[in-house]
Amino acid sequence: MGPSDLFQAFSKTVGDLRNRFLPPRPGGQEILLLAEALLSGQGEASDVAVARKFLAAYDGLTEENRLSFLALLDRQFGPDPERLERALTKFKDQPMAQAAREMHEAAESRREVLFRRINFSPGGTRGLLQMREDVLGNLPAHPELASVDADFKHLFASWFNRGFLVLRRIDWTTPANILEKIIRYEAVHEIATWDDLRRRLEPTDRRCFAFFHPAMQDEPLIFLQVALTTDLPVAIVPLLADNKNSIPPGKATYAVFYSISNCQVGLKGISLGDFLIKQVVEDLKREIPSLKTFITLSPVPGFLRWLTQERGKGASNYIAGGDKDVLALLDKPDWHLDATSASLLKPRLLSFVAAYLMAVRTESGKPIDPVARFHLGNGARLERIHWLSDLTPKGLRQAAGFMVNYLYEPDRIERNQESFAVHGEIVSSHAVRKYLRSDIQKRFPIPF
Amino acid sequence: MGPSDLFQAFSKTVGDLRNRFLPPRPGGQEILLLAEALLSGQGEASDVAVARKFLAAYDGLTEENRLSFLALLDRQFGPDPERLERALTKFKDQPMAQAAREMHEAAESRREVLFRRINFSPGGTRGLLQMREDVLGNLPAHPELASVDADFKHLFASWFNRGFLVLRRIDWTTPANILEKIIRYEAVHEIATWDDLRRRLEPTDRRCFAFFHPAMQDEPLIFLQVALTTDLPVAIVPLLADNKNSIPPGKATYAVFYSISNCQVGLKGISLGDFLIKQVVEDLKREIPSLKTFITLSPVPGFLRWLTQERGKGASNYIAGGDKDVLALLDKPDWHLDATSASLLKPRLLSFVAAYLMAVRTESGKPIDPVARFHLGNGARLERIHWLSDLTPKGLRQAAGFMVNYLYEPDRIERNQESFAVHGEIVSSHAVRKYLRSDIQKRFPIPF
Amino acid sequence: MGPSDLFQAFSKTVGDLRNRFLPPRPGGQEILLLAEALLSGQGEASDVAVARKFLAAYDGLTEENRLSFLALLDRQFGPDPERLERALTKFKDQPMAQAAREMHEAAESRREVLFRRINFSPGGTRGLLQMREDVLGNLPAHPELASVDADFKHLFASWFNRGFLVLRRIDWTTPANILEKIIRYEAVHEIATWDDLRRRLEPTDRRCFAFFHPAMQDEPLIFLQVALTTDLPVAIVPLLADNKNSIPPGKATYAVFYSISNCQVGLKGISLGDFLIKQVVEDLKREIPSLKTFITLSPVPGFLRWLTQERGKGASNYIAGGDKDVLALLDKPDWHLDATSASLLKPRLLSFVAAYLMAVRTESGKPIDPVARFHLGNGARLERIHWLSDLTPKGLRQAAGFMVNYLYEPDRIERNQESFAVHGEIVSSHAVRKYLRSDIQKRFPIPF
Amino acid sequence: MGPSDLFQAFSKTVGDLRNRFLPPRPGGQEILLLAEALLSGQGEASDVAVARKFLAAYDGLTEENRLSFLALLDRQFGPDPERLERALTKFKDQPMAQAAREMHEAAESRREVLFRRINFSPGGTRGLLQMREDVLGNLPAHPELASVDADFKHLFASWFNRGFLVLRRIDWTTPANILEKIIRYEAVHEIATWDDLRRRLEPTDRRCFAFFHPAMQDEPLIFLQVALTTDLPVAIVPLLADNKNSIPPGKATYAVFYSISNCQVGLKGISLGDFLIKQVVEDLKREIPSLKTFITLSPVPGFLRWLTQERGKGASNYIAGGDKDVLALLDKPDWHLDATSASLLKPRLLSFVAAYLMAVRTESGKPIDPVARFHLGNGARLERIHWLSDLTPKGLRQAAGFMVNYLYEPDRIERNQESFAVHGEIVSSHAVRKYLRSDIQKRFPIPF
Repeated sequence: MGPSDLFQAFSKTVGDLRNRFLPPRPGGQEILLLAEALLSGQGEASDVAVARKFLAAYDGLTEENRLSFLALLDRQFGPDPERLERALTKFKDQPMAQAAREMHEAAESRREVLFRRINFSPGGTRGLLQMREDVLGNLPAHPELASVDADFKHLFASWFNRGFLVLRRIDWTTPANILEKIIRYEAVHEIATWDDLRRRLEPTDRRCFAFFHPAMQDEPLIFLQVALTTDLPVAIVPLLADNKNSIPPGKATYAVFYSISNCQVGLKGISLGDFLIKQVVEDLKREIPSLKTFITLSPVPGFLRWLTQERGKGASNYIAGGDKDVLALLDKPDWHLDATSASLLKPRLLSFVAAYLMAVRTESGKPIDPVARFHLGNGARLERIHWLSDLTPKGLRQAAGFMVNYLYEPDRIERNQESFAVHGEIVSSHAVRKYLRSDIQKRFPIPF
Repeated sequence: MGPSDLFQAFSKTVGDLRNRFLPPRPGGQEILLLAEALLSGQGEASDVAVARKFLAAYDGLTEENRLSFLALLDRQFGPDPERLERALTKFKDQPMAQAAREMHEAAESRREVLFRRINFSPGGTRGLLQMREDVLGNLPAHPELASVDADFKHLFASWFNRGFLVLRRIDWTTPANILEKIIRYEAVHEIATWDDLRRRLEPTDRRCFAFFHPAMQDEPLIFLQVALTTDLPVAIVPLLADNKNSIPPGKATYAVFYSISNCQVGLKGISLGDFLIKQVVEDLKREIPSLKTFITLSPVPGFLRWLTQERGKGASNYIAGGDKDVLALLDKPDWHLDATSASLLKPRLLSFVAAYLMAVRTESGKPIDPVARFHLGNGARLERIHWLSDLTPKGLRQAAGFMVNYLYEPDRIERNQESFAVHGEIVSSHAVRKYLRSDIQKRFPIPF
Repeated sequence: MGPSDLFQAFSKTVGDLRNRFLPPRPGGQEILLLAEALLSGQGEASDVAVARKFLAAYDGLTEENRLSFLALLDRQFGPDPERLERALTKFKDQPMAQAAREMHEAAESRREVLFRRINFSPGGTRGLLQMREDVLGNLPAHPELASVDADFKHLFASWFNRGFLVLRRIDWTTPANILEKIIRYEAVHEIATWDDLRRRLEPTDRRCFAFFHPAMQDEPLIFLQVALTTDLPVAIVPLLADNKNSIPPGKATYAVFYSISNCQVGLKGISLGDFLIKQVVEDLKREIPSLKTFITLSPVPGFLRWLTQERGKGASNYIAGGDKDVLALLDKPDWHLDATSASLLKPRLLSFVAAYLMAVRTESGKPIDPVARFHLGNGARLERIHWLSDLTPKGLRQAAGFMVNYLYEPDRIERNQESFAVHGEIVSSHAVRKYLRSDIQKRFPIPF
Repeated sequence: MGPSDLFQAFSKTVGDLRNRFLPPRPGGQEILLLAEALLSGQGEASDVAVARKFLAAYDGLTEENRLSFLALLDRQFGPDPERLERALTKFKDQPMAQAAREMHEAAESRREVLFRRINFSPGGTRGLLQMREDVLGNLPAHPELASVDADFKHLFASWFNRGFLVLRRIDWTTPANILEKIIRYEAVHEIATWDDLRRRLEPTDRRCFAFFHPAMQDEPLIFLQVALTTDLPVAIVPLLADNKNSIPPGKATYAVFYSISNCQVGLKGISLGDFLIKQVVEDLKREIPSLKTFITLSPVPGFLRWLTQERGKGASNYIAGGDKDVLALLDKPDWHLDATSASLLKPRLLSFVAAYLMAVRTESGKPIDPVARFHLGNGARLERIHWLSDLTPKGLRQAAGFMVNYLYEPDRIERNQESFAVHGEIVSSHAVRKYLRSDIQKRFPIPF
C-alpha cells in the first residue's frame, strides 16, 4: 500500500486509541486546554504566560490526573497525521533532501513542540524534568508512555549538551541549599549528617565537583567526590573516616574518585558522568601537578547477586562442583571475621569476581556489572581488586566486601574507550588478569 | 511505488549529487575526517577533544574551503538513506506511533547530530553561530545550502529557547567588551562614539536591556534601548541629544522604545525581539510604577521605496494622477525646508504612509513594512504617525522624515496579537485611521 | 614640676616596670623581634612579609607565651617617652594647635602603630581580633592589660566604622561555612541542629541579617533574626517551632526581632547592634510595605537574680514583707504549672518586673537589665510584658518566664534615644507603666 | 608655667582666633550645626541620618563657603581645651601609662572624631576624600589648613591600610565607568581615546592592576600598567604602538612597568604605590613562571629643569665650563634629529643624567628626581639609562629624551630598601655607574 493508504491505517489506529481513552477527570481539563493553547501559539511571547499557567496547573494535578495527562501526551500529541501524510506523499513524488527534511519535521511529535514551549516559562526546565520523572515512575505499569519518555530524552540530550554544562567545585563555602542536595543524592556511600558532609568537603585533601545547568543554578545534576592521597587506597572506610591529618594538595600523588552520583531522575540516560570524570581529571592535573594517578575506588554492586544465581544453577559455566561447598561458607553470618572461612574463600572469590567483571557479558557484549560498564566504557582500565575492602553491611551484602580500582590514564583514555566500544575489549592490569582462571579465559573469546 | 523503491530513487539521487561534488581542496580534508569522527563517536566524552579540533580546523579554513565544506554538509550529511528506508518499511508494516517516531529519527539529518556534537567543545555554540553566518552569506549564490540553514535554525530555536535566555541591563557599569558590541550592532540610530554611547546609558532616564545566552556570557543577542519621558516623543533627534536635564525615573510616565537591534546574524529567524519587549514592559512596570505608557518611536524604513515604485506605475491603486505632480516635489533637495512644498506634501504623504502601513500587504496578508510587521505581530497598536520627525539623511531618504509610535498596552497585547495572527487585523488608533483615504479603506477588506 | 621633670618620673616608672618584667620564655623571643622590626619598618611594603611572619609566630605561641607577649605590649609598647617629653616641652613653649597635635601623636602608644602594621598582612584583621580576644580573656586576672585593650578598642572603633560594614541577608542559600557560625554564635535561643537553623532561615516569613567587614568576608560580626507575623507574638516557643504554615511576606504586619547575637568577642564594646537594627528596620520597611510594627520579643535575663537579691535583703525598697511569702512559691519546682501559685505570683511578679526594668538603675542612671539598656538606648519603647511567655528552663531560671516587647517606631527612634541619653527617660507604654506600683513611681524621680 | 597656666594661654589664643573668624555666609550655617550635632551624637545609629545630611550640605556649598567651613575645622574643631587641661593635670600628678593614654585621647582633635562619624553615611568615605581634596587645593593660599590636612592624612593612613586594599586586574572586560577613570587618571603616558585604552588592556601581553577600597568599589585608587616582553624595552613609543603581534604570556621573560598613576588626590601621601608594585611582582611571578625580570621603563621628569638651573649658575658643581657650549645645543629645536649635535651631547648628557639621578640629593639625602626617589625607595635598582628613548614632546622637554629602567629583583628588594632608607645608598648597575664622572663620585660620599 502507498503512503496514503498507509496513513489511513495509521489515522484509524490513532482514532481507535483516542476513543478508548477515558475522559480526563475533573481538574484535568484545564491542562489539556493550556497544552493546546501553547501548541496553537501564534504570538510566541504571549506563550510565556500560558506556559507559566500550564506549569502551575500540572503542579496542582493529583497523581491520578497526572497519569491521565501523561497518557494523553502519548495518544493525542504524537505527529500530526495529516501533515505526516502530506509529507510522505511529497517524498514519494520527490525523494530528495528537501522532502526528507519535511518528512522529518512532520514526523516530529506535537509533544516535543509542546515541551519546548513549556520551557518559555521561568522554571520550565525544572518542571519538564519533573514531568519526565513522573513518566519514568509510571513507565513499568504503563509501557505505552515509552513514546513520551523517548521525546523527553531526545530533548534533554540536546538541552543538557556538554557545551551548556557548568562545572563547579562543591566545598564547605557552597550554599546550604545545594549542599543539602549533595546529602540527599549521594548514592554510593551515604552521607548521614552535616558533619559527615563536612568531612568530605572541608579537608585540604578532599574535592567534590558537580555539573550544573544554567537554567537551574541551584540544582546539581551529577557530582563526583575525590580524595587526594599519597597511596593507592585499598578500603573505603578509612577514606571516609574523620581524618585529622589532611595532607596539603601539593603532596598528593593519587586522585581517588570514590563516589559519583546522579541527582536528577529526569535526566536518566543522558551522558553526564563520563564528561564529568574527564573534565575533573583534566582540571586536577593542571591545578595539582604532583598528581600522577587518577583512579577510582569503586563498588561491585552486582557480584553476589550473580554469584548466587550461578550457585543455584545445576551446571554453571563458572563454578565447579567442588567450589560450591566452599561458597556455602558465605551463608554464615560474619564469615569474613572467621579466618578459616576467609582463607578458604579468598582465592575462589577473587577468581569469581574477576570472571564476573571481565567474562560475564550482556547480550551486546558489555560487562554486566553496571559500575564496570560505566568506567570501562569511559576508557578506564580495570586495575586492582581488593579483598575485604568494604566491610559495611551494604559492601558485604552486594560484593562480599570486594572493591575495585579503575584507572584513568589521561593519555590512554581515548584508545581504551575505542577498544571497548568497537571490540568489547576490557583493558585490565596483569594483577587482575592473573585471577582469571585459564579455562574461562579460553572459553570466552572476548578480549580482555 | 512503495517506500523501498522510493528510496532506491532517493539513494540514487544522493549518489549522483555526491559524484558531482568536487573533491575538497587541500586543507579541507582534515575537517571532513573530524566531522566523520564526531559522528561515529563511540565514547562521548572523548568527543570534546575532537569537537575542539573541529572548531579550530573550521576556523583555519579559507573562505573557499569553508564553502566547500558547507556544501558537503548539504550533500553528504543529510539523513542516512539506509536507515530511513528501514524506518519507512517498518512504518509501512506497522503504521503506529513507535514507527512514526523511528521514521522521525531516521529522517533527521546527520548534520544536526554533528552540530550537537560540535557543541561539546568550549566555544562550540559561538562556533556554530559563525558557521550559520557563513551559510547565510553564501545562501544567495548557493541556494542548495538552504537545507543546512534549516537544520541550524531548527537547532537554534531549541537552544535559544526563551527559558534559557537571560535578561541583563546594559548600563555604564557594563564591561567594555560588551559595550563595544552594543556600539557595533546598533542598527537603527548609529552610535558614533563612546560619548554617544554613554549618553544612551548613563542618564537616570535611559535604559538598555539585552538578552544573553549562558553559553556566550559576553555576547549580547539582541538589545532594546528605552527613554523614560514625561511626554509622548514626536522626534528622534532630541531623544538622542546631549541632555543635561535627565528626569528621575519616578517622574516618568512614558517608556519609549526607540531602538531594537539584533546582534547575531547566526540567529536570523529565531524569535527574540518579541520576548525581549514583553519582558522589558513587565519589568519596567514593576520597577517604576509611575510608567503608564509603553510605546515605540520607530522608523518606517520601506516607505519611500514603495512610494517610488507606485509613482512609477502607470496606474497605481494608491496614487491618483493629480497626486503625482505634488509628489514630484519630493525630488527636490531639501524639500522639507521649503514651507510651500511641505504644506502641499503633508496631507498626501500622511495618507500614503497610512496606506503603506495598513493597506499594503504581503501575499500572506502581513504589512510590507518590516518594522510594522514586527511590532504589530507582537501585539502593539499603530498609535501615531509623525510628520517631519526624523530629519537625518537616513530618515529623509527612507521615510520622508516620518516616524511612528507603536503602543504596547500590557492588557491588550495578547488580544491584539491574536487578531493580527488569525485575521490579519491591524489594531490602530483613530488618529491614524483618519489619515487613510476612504476609498482605500473600502477597496481592501482586510480589517484595520 | 615642669613637663621635663614630669617625664623623668614617667620614664623612671616605666623603667622600673620594665625591670620587673620577666624575660620571655623560649619561643617568645622571635615575636618580640618581629614586632620591633615592624615598628622600625623603613620600607612599608616589605612589612607585608614581616607582618605575615608576626601573625604566624603569634599563632604558634603557647598560651603562656601569649600572655607574656601581651604583658610586654602593655609595658614596652606604650608611647615613646623621649618623643612625648619633647612634644610636651614644645607645647609648653607654644600652646598652639600644631603643638597639641604633636603631643597627640607623641602620646600615641607604639602598640597602636604596631597593630596597624600587623594589618598589612593577609588575615591581619582576623589575627588582631584574636589578639584582643586573648587580652579580654586574660584581663580579669591581669588588669594591667587594660591599656592594650583600650588601644585595640580605639583602633577597631575606627576600622569597624559603620561606613565599612556590609549588610547581608543570611538565608538557606548562604554558604555553609557562614551558616555554621550562625549556629555557633546564636546567643539568645540556641540553634541545636541544621534542621533547626533551616526553620529559622528558609520559611517565607523568616529573615536573618548580618553585618560583615570586607576584610573578613566569611565572618559575620553580628546578626539579627526576624519573624514576619500578623499578630503581636507573646511567646517564643511557637515562633521557633516547626511551622508548616508560613505566610507570604506581603501579608505580614509585624516584624519581630527575636534574637540578636554578637559573633566576635574581639569587637566587645564596638557599636554594631544599634546600627544593625536600624538598618534592618529601614530595609524591611522599603521591601515589605505591609509591615507596620517593628518590635522585639526579648528576654529579661537579670530579673530573677535581682529579685533573689532583694528577697535576701532585710529591707528592700521594692518588696514588702507580705510579698516575701508569696515569692517563696517561686522556690518550688514547676511553680508555673500550679494554677494557684501562678495566680498568686502573677500580679506581684508583674509589678516587680516592671520595677526591675524601669526603676532599678545603674549608678549612671541606666536600667540594670542589659537587654533593656540596649534597646532603650537604641530608641525603642518598652511596650509589653508577657507573663509565662518563655517556659524553657533558661527562661524560667532567668526571668520566671517573662518576656518583653520593645517597640521600634521609625519616626520616634531619634527622639526616644535622645530622651534616654540626656534625661535617662525610659519611654514606655501605658500597658507597662500601669504595672509599676505608685509608691515606686513616686520614690524614683527618674522619668519613665 | 604649669599645664594649667599653659592652657589658659592656649584657650585664650584659640578664643582670639575664634573672634577673628568671619561669620559663615548664608548657607554655611547649616553645616556647622550638623557638624556639632554629629559630635554631640548620643545615639550612634541616628548619626547615620545626620551624617547623610552633612554630606549633602557640604556637597551643596559654594567654593567660598567650603573654604569658610574648612577654616572653621581648623579653628573650632581642634582638641577640647578643657579636656586636654584635665588630662595634662592628671598626667602631672601620675605620669603613668593610663594618664598618657588619656592625654593622647584628649589631644585628639574633635575634627578627627567628626570625620569618623561622617563616615557613618553611605558615600562617606568618598565625601571625606573630596573634603581633603578641597583642603589640599586651598592649602597653598591657606597654610593654616595644614592641621586639617594632617588629621585627614592620619585617618586615611589607618583606613587605607594595606590589609583593606583589594587588588583587581583591569582589562577589557572591566566596567566602562571604571575604565573611564583609568583614561582620566593616567598621569605618565596620556591615553587619548578608548581605542588607545584598549591597546593597553586587551592584548595578551599587556596587564593593568589597580588597588580598590571596599567602600568605593568603582573608584580605582592607583593603577600600574605592565607590558610582557621578550626583550628589555629601550623606548616607550613602540611599547604603546598598535601592535598586531602580541606574544602569549607564557613566552614573556620581562614584565615592564611602564606607568603607575594615582587616582585620588585625597590620598596624597598615603603609601600605595610600593605595595602595588610588590604585589604585582609577586602575583605575576606565580602566574607566569617564564618571567625572569621585573623592571620599569620610567621617565626622568626633573632632569632638564635641574640641568637648566645648573647651566644658569656661575659655578656648578656638576657642569664644567667647557660643557656649557655643548649644552647650548639643547636650545636648538629638534637638536635630537641632528646627528652632530646628538653625538656631541650624548656622552655629556649621559654623565649629567647619571649625576642627577644618583648624586643630586635633597636635604634628607634622597634623590631629587621624584620617580627615582619612589622606585629606589621601594627597593629597586637603577639599572639602565636610555639615550633618545622618549621622543614625545613631553619626553624631550622634561628629560631630553632619556628614560630609565629600575629593576625589581624579588630577592633583593628588602635589602635594597633598607640600604636606601638607612644609609641613603642607591643600588645601581655597573652600566649606570660608569656614566658617573669620577670627580663627582669622589666629591659625594653618599654611597651609590
